[in-house]
Amino acid sequence: MPSEINNIAVFTSGGDAPGMNAAIRAVVRASIFYKKNIFGIYRGYEGMIDNDIVELDARSVGNIIQRGGTILKSARSEEFRTAEGRKQAYENIKSRGIDALVAIGGDGTFTGLHAFYKEFGLPVICVPGTIDNDLPGTDYTIGYDTATNTVVDAVDKIRDTALSHNRLFFIEVMGRDSGAIAINSGIAGGAAAIIIPEEEMTIDELVAKLDKGGESKKSSSLVIVAEGGKSGSAMDIAAEVTKRFPYYDTKVTILGHLQRGGAPTYFDRVLASKMGVYAVEGLLDGKTDVMVGIKDNLTVFNDFETIMSNGHEIDTDALRISKILSI
Amino acid sequence: MPSEINNIAVFTSGGDAPGMNAAIRAVVRASIFYKKNIFGIYRGYEGMIDNDIVELDARSVGNIIQRGGTILKSARSEEFRTAEGRKQAYENIKSRGIDALVAIGGDGTFTGLHAFYKEFGLPVICVPGTIDNDLPGTDYTIGYDTATNTVVDAVDKIRDTALSHNRLFFIEVMGRDSGAIAINSGIAGGAAAIIIPEEEMTIDELVAKLDKGGESKKSSSLVIVAEGGKSGSAMDIAAEVTKRFPYYDTKVTILGHLQRGGAPTYFDRVLASKMGVYAVEGLLDGKTDVMVGIKDNLTVFNDFETIMSNGHEIDTDALRISKILSI
Amino acid sequence: MPSEINNIAVFTSGGDAPGMNAAIRAVVRASIFYKKNIFGIYRGYEGMIDNDIVELDARSVGNIIQRGGTILKSARSEEFRTAEGRKQAYENIKSRGIDALVAIGGDGTFTGLHAFYKEFGLPVICVPGTIDNDLPGTDYTIGYDTATNTVVDAVDKIRDTALSHNRLFFIEVMGRDSGAIAINSGIAGGAAAIIIPEEEMTIDELVAKLDKGGESKKSSSLVIVAEGGKSGSAMDIAAEVTKRFPYYDTKVTILGHLQRGGAPTYFDRVLASKMGVYAVEGLLDGKTDVMVGIKDNLTVFNDFETIMSNGHEIDTDALRISKILSI
Amino acid sequence: MPSEINNIAVFTSGGDAPGMNAAIRAVVRASIFYKKNIFGIYRGYEGMIDNDIVELDARSVGNIIQRGGTILKSARSEEFRTAEGRKQAYENIKSRGIDALVAIGGDGTFTGLHAFYKEFGLPVICVPGTIDNDLPGTDYTIGYDTATNTVVDAVDKIRDTALSHNRLFFIEVMGRDSGAIAINSGIAGGAAAIIIPEEEMTIDELVAKLDKGGESKKSSSLVIVAEGGKSGSAMDIAAEVTKRFPYYDTKVTILGHLQRGGAPTYFDRVLASKMGVYAVEGLLDGKTDVMVGIKDNLTVFNDFETIMSNGHEIDTDALRISKILSI
Repeated sequence: MPSEINNIAVFTSGGDAPGMNAAIRAVVRASIFYKKNIFGIYRGYEGMIDNDIVELDARSVGNIIQRGGTILKSARSEEFRTAEGRKQAYENIKSRGIDALVAIGGDGTFTGLHAFYKEFGLPVICVPGTIDNDLPGTDYTIGYDTATNTVVDAVDKIRDTALSHNRLFFIEVMGRDSGAIAINSGIAGGAAAIIIPEEEMTIDELVAKLDKGGESKKSSSLVIVAEGGKSGSAMDIAAEVTKRFPYYDTKVTILGHLQRGGAPTYFDRVLASKMGVYAVEGLLDGKTDVMVGIKDNLTVFNDFETIMSNGHEIDTDALRISKILSI
Repeated sequence: MPSEINNIAVFTSGGDAPGMNAAIRAVVRASIFYKKNIFGIYRGYEGMIDNDIVELDARSVGNIIQRGGTILKSARSEEFRTAEGRKQAYENIKSRGIDALVAIGGDGTFTGLHAFYKEFGLPVICVPGTIDNDLPGTDYTIGYDTATNTVVDAVDKIRDTALSHNRLFFIEVMGRDSGAIAINSGIAGGAAAIIIPEEEMTIDELVAKLDKGGESKKSSSLVIVAEGGKSGSAMDIAAEVTKRFPYYDTKVTILGHLQRGGAPTYFDRVLASKMGVYAVEGLLDGKTDVMVGIKDNLTVFNDFETIMSNGHEIDTDALRISKILSI
Repeated sequence: MPSEINNIAVFTSGGDAPGMNAAIRAVVRASIFYKKNIFGIYRGYEGMIDNDIVELDARSVGNIIQRGGTILKSARSEEFRTAEGRKQAYENIKSRGIDALVAIGGDGTFTGLHAFYKEFGLPVICVPGTIDNDLPGTDYTIGYDTATNTVVDAVDKIRDTALSHNRLFFIEVMGRDSGAIAINSGIAGGAAAIIIPEEEMTIDELVAKLDKGGESKKSSSLVIVAEGGKSGSAMDIAAEVTKRFPYYDTKVTILGHLQRGGAPTYFDRVLASKMGVYAVEGLLDGKTDVMVGIKDNLTVFNDFETIMSNGHEIDTDALRISKILSI
Repeated sequence: MPSEINNIAVFTSGGDAPGMNAAIRAVVRASIFYKKNIFGIYRGYEGMIDNDIVELDARSVGNIIQRGGTILKSARSEEFRTAEGRKQAYENIKSRGIDALVAIGGDGTFTGLHAFYKEFGLPVICVPGTIDNDLPGTDYTIGYDTATNTVVDAVDKIRDTALSHNRLFFIEVMGRDSGAIAINSGIAGGAAAIIIPEEEMTIDELVAKLDKGGESKKSSSLVIVAEGGKSGSAMDIAAEVTKRFPYYDTKVTILGHLQRGGAPTYFDRVLASKMGVYAVEGLLDGKTDVMVGIKDNLTVFNDFETIMSNGHEIDTDALRISKILSI
């Protein structure tokens, strides 16, 4: 049985995602609601090692729910990969009396947290904050909904100019291992084709798909390419396709880091608010070394092996539907 | 066993919702994908009676996925409530050879469709398009995600001015029977209190909640009021609260019809795309007199009694969390 | 010749407007650029009386240029209308060594500033921050561009639902004395009619205008009503029009305070940045008791009489064009 | 004295810009207002040669004022550069009875129009539609306001992630010959430095500027680079800077074609509406071979030499202010 928890600390780590501030706010206010002290650690594991830690109150997190980024900042820490780094981090949090941790981030964040838990036995819990939606054990990760809407908004703008000029556009979106953003922004953007890491599509297949579009007198086309697609980058694919369709006016846009920012959608704010509260309640209920998730509308606490061993699922029905609709 | 379906018609009915065009597009393209003819009926049941019907092809629904409203228009039809009206409607669609219907709308739309099915035996299926998210049998209805984001965007703007002036704002949002928009926009907007049709909150309770805010030196507050709340309209509630807090600068904003419009979010476009395809596939698979739904990530076909007899569910955990976070 | 200025204070007063934070930032950084100390006064004249004043540096105004509202907050002060109130305010700023003031606000703000200048002789300058664009001596006031875009965004959403239902919508926008927002959002929103404080339009004239729309088979119409229109509120006008057109489905939306908030447009940020710098440079150049303006692309410093005696100009050519385009 | 004009044709040419549809609408409705027939030519000079011309009425341009792109489409025509191409074009428009042309586009469009006028003597007028705002003779071109807001919205999103990670971002924006978008989005985005075609900035100067930022403990920085900057592309500059600041985490984003799309701002819609009306009124008043402009709030008709011989002006005061504010 865990000893009582009195002082919780929260931090963000890895790539930032819209909604992280809403999650921080929820962790802080839930801790206060349950009469616990709550600390914020700046710059993730880096700040834990540098002792960059402050106590927070309910007002510290006022007027942040709508902001992109993370007020606690984020960083990648090489030092935390070393035993000495982690020992220094542990001493810093111990000296503040911190007896439980909530980390907000992706699988890398959870990996660090798991190592820390194994070494020092402190109750820890992870909240999935990453735009990629590539984690098993939860239907949605914080930031994914906002990022996909940001992509779709950009695709809508690009469609305006594509339609005005009968152009073929290749739009590269985030997703090293996951096609989630690509599939859903592709359906929502009315893309002629979607290229993702989880499915092979040869240039021949792509050209066949686009050519059918040509026959049916479609005047312009958009292709969404996840950055981790197996046929190369959007730039590479566009170059190959242009060789086959020299008469097309082909353009490439790489959306890049603007996908990470912006005011979070209601969905990400509510998801982050729930997960932040569940994380604190989970800790107080004795859960440790787990990641919060919401699956089929139920709260779940996934252990480390579940998150790491299973690949994320791909929405195969969405893929199927994208093909029906791009006729 | 149903006789073969060859000619499908689609229409929208009741209040419009963002994503209806994406649903129309999906019904049209799925019909064509399955080698069926597809017709569009303008202005819902009214156009069915007036014989305002056109044949559609894949290009008819190009470049509409991002548009609010409905290209097929919508109307409320008194005449369709009469047996003569429905008979006229049936004759019109019969004369076109239409042998199955897809309706996009809310419970009123399904009620009309059910009556039509009972009288004429035509295969019919309903796609849930309404911003209220007040239907059992599906986690989400088309338009709800967009409408809630529209509300949250307005709340963010109002918060700017509320914070600049230390004001108390009452914001009235749509939801005659359902607090779904109010609860989720309330959490996402960081509201001090949320008033919904499904839960009683007296003015005394509200005042106690806001006063606690006062004690904790909160400098401004937002209260979200669903239009169907039991304590009266936002205007009424504000008047009552002002009597108790004469020193507060109280303002009311009624968001009104702007909640219905706008480019749909990716979520509503994908939801509408899936449901439109499922509706056509359901019809071809022999389903009739049902409403498509997606529940716990599974496609379901709900019969009329399920939709009508059960009230919609309220997210009680979201309500609980809104209270923890408004400290 | 003015004695040297060393310590400048900045504050916002009256209704808040998007871009006020950009103006604060510009005043602060320009002061530092010219090696002056810079103070911020909270809640306008109220904070001057309450001695709610802090010293600022370049970092104090980091990451605020994109935020709506005002970080210095605003308030209306009854006490400042009294000689005692102003004396208390003067003593507070004198005790800090503040020897010049920059006020950001509308004509009420300038009126208070002018009285203060007359009594105490302190160099003062006003920056026009108000969404109404109703001040002579400048082509644009800070906040107007953003507010008009916010209105147009709402009008676009309402048009979606108006077109889907063949409805007549009356949309009330801000503007007690000024039709600037109404005229420009009316043109940009494709309104059938625009009702403003500066021009009489009888219900008969309005009905004639809308009826012509009916003849030409226009399927839905929007009417923009400035809140200070002479024919009454949007609600009143809609009631009158409905009497004459009982067959129309008429709706009213009052946009209210959401017009004040939101991230400022580039235009308002650049305008505020320029005006904030010009205000500091004006003060250091010996200007006092004036309001900064930009007219025909030239910087001007308007004295109090100019701002108060002349009414603001109305863009009569825009009005003329709105009538040509609403055929 | 020109013979009477009865049949006007309008077309868009060159790169598309938000607000072109508003301009088309204004040309169409003003023509009808003045009892003229009005035609639309698809795909610019290309469609003139291909005889891709339709007659328009007031309804043809309903519900387009808010749409990005151009409903008349645009194209670049090699054939129109030949005398034969132009002759074919002239014969096509003559056969329709078209006796005056309104072209919407940039300097390339005007160049083609001027050649056409010289050869065939038809009354012609050009409306400046280009996001670059690089034309003398008008304070603003259609599309520039929207494009700059699109850039600033992207910069705001990127700032979220830059601040969360203490990163240095290089953002490349459109502007081959013109720094207008870069300067104004740089001021509005709070950029540490702005690199434009019209002003030399060496890597040494840039590094000195950014380093000062480092000293003053600025935690992250944005640099805006116009694509036509003299020090190379954003990618090149970032590579050079990274050599000098190896400890910085440097990222590059190239905004690309999303800058051309999107619903136009109120400013671009009103500008386009005015210019479209002025173009028709100018033609009817005997003007020919000119480009409409609005300068210092006055309508002007610029002849071909004015537009071509003078370079566009740069807002040197804005540049000066950007430097004061980036301290």
